[in-house]
Amino acid sequence: MNIDKLLAPWQPHVEASGKPCRLADFDPKARPFSIGDKAQDKARVETLALELDMLQELFYADRRYKLLVVLQGIDAAGKDGTIRGVFGQLSPLGVDTIGWKVPSEEERAHDYLWRIHQKMPGAGQVMIFNRSHYEEVLVPVVNGWITPAQTHQRYRHINEFERLLVETGTVVLKFMLHISFEEQRVRLQERVDDPTKHWKFSLGDLEVRKQWPAYQQAYEALLGATSTAWAPWTVVPADSKTHRNLMIATIVRDTLRQLELRYPPSDPKLAGLKVK
Amino acid sequence: MNIDKLLAPWQPHVEASGKPCRLADFDPKARPFSIGDKAQDKARVETLALELDMLQELFYADRRYKLLVVLQGIDAAGKDGTIRGVFGQLSPLGVDTIGWKVPSEEERAHDYLWRIHQKMPGAGQVMIFNRSHYEEVLVPVVNGWITPAQTHQRYRHINEFERLLVETGTVVLKFMLHISFEEQRVRLQERVDDPTKHWKFSLGDLEVRKQWPAYQQAYEALLGATSTAWAPWTVVPADSKTHRNLMIATIVRDTLRQLELRYPPSDPKLAGLKVK
Repeated sequence: MNIDKLLAPWQPHVEASGKPCRLADFDPKARPFSIGDKAQDKARVETLALELDMLQELFYADRRYKLLVVLQGIDAAGKDGTIRGVFGQLSPLGVDTIGWKVPSEEERAHDYLWRIHQKMPGAGQVMIFNRSHYEEVLVPVVNGWITPAQTHQRYRHINEFERLLVETGTVVLKFMLHISFEEQRVRLQERVDDPTKHWKFSLGDLEVRKQWPAYQQAYEALLGATSTAWAPWTVVPADSKTHRNLMIATIVRDTLRQLELRYPPSDPKLAGLKVK
Repeated sequence: MNIDKLLAPWQPHVEASGKPCRLADFDPKARPFSIGDKAQDKARVETLALELDMLQELFYADRRYKLLVVLQGIDAAGKDGTIRGVFGQLSPLGVDTIGWKVPSEEERAHDYLWRIHQKMPGAGQVMIFNRSHYEEVLVPVVNGWITPAQTHQRYRHINEFERLLVETGTVVLKFMLHISFEEQRVRLQERVDDPTKHWKFSLGDLEVRKQWPAYQQAYEALLGATSTAWAPWTVVPADSKTHRNLMIATIVRDTLRQLELRYPPSDPKLAGLKVK
């Protein structure tokens, strides 16, 4: 299948289209990468996860690239579940995950990309961000802690920061996990009803849920402003966990394949060498 | 005195002037900040160094800004001497210096600004770079390790990186210590003749000296491309050590003064409080 064609409707192209990004245009129940019924799609995700494991080993050996995967989405959008379902098969060797929290005092004493830059993957490494620097153009925007001018400064900082990364060999994949208001209600209710999920829930999540329209708007603005040619966003319909994983796994797999990874050239002295 | 007026001829404004930056236009023997004879100028440097110490304590308490001082220049241009002569009076509390060397294997596995960003000063801190990220548009350029297109990519990375710094509260002062070919000969000869200076000398320095015109050209190109409104370069005539220090100390002092530093507001509960 032609992944670029399948992907196009899910990657906001504000500059090309001239129209603002509207999340209402993206159906959170869509299944653009489905290959059959749910059981078939589930099996496909597992196959892809295994293939990703093999590709990552090659990626690690090749060492020409770095891979950054950014997972953004509101509470219960499925960031943790994506990491388990898509990247769960990867060897920890060369793969790392960070869940970004409120910055520490030392982090706040620096520019907001300082702590982000430190955690960038090195050659051959894969880094998965559970939340990311994009929180810096969400929470402060919704709560009015920064002005629109400052928000636009930040878009530029982020775009140029990602340009540096991409031009120095990092592949940047950014996924916005897009769920419906009703789906969030169901998932938060599950967390409330199940004591084994209470650790994932705080009453503050309900306050944030009340700000739903403001967050949607902040997401629309950032998707429009930071979907660059070098690091485009993909909006992932995420009401179905299986299809969310299927879409992300397919994109990551195809991205790695397109790099034409290879084991580094062998030392010619190894040809025919007998180990004594 | 009006420092901006004195400074203008020493800050390349390629975009404004439309003319390429030519180091030949900058006299390494000039003394634009001189106030009298050599003894008077020397005394002035000492006064300024003491004033800088007081201002830095206030800078540390104020915590609204960060200060990055970049010292660039060819071998024997006087980078170490500037640190001793201008910043030697500063308390180590809140002041740090880094002499950038060839990157380690881990550093090379990341983009070239990765290690630089990590060392940025935090709120209230002063960081002095002895060499800097600008080495990345000097050595590889002179030796042809990167293409002109890559060099221009790097100029942009650096400009946008510095924009991020400045827009998030860092004051960036960049000094290019400008000495003549003859002055470098004299200083390198001193190092050769004095066994206590042999640690500062390597035979490789003579190889680099042979590339003098190529380095001058690389400096001219970077001065033209990275003298931005937010982080301009100052070319410092540096054949005279006293006058180099005088110029830099004056600029740093005036820069700190212009910030209108203040001690943070007192807790009102402290008024009239008796310590028992």
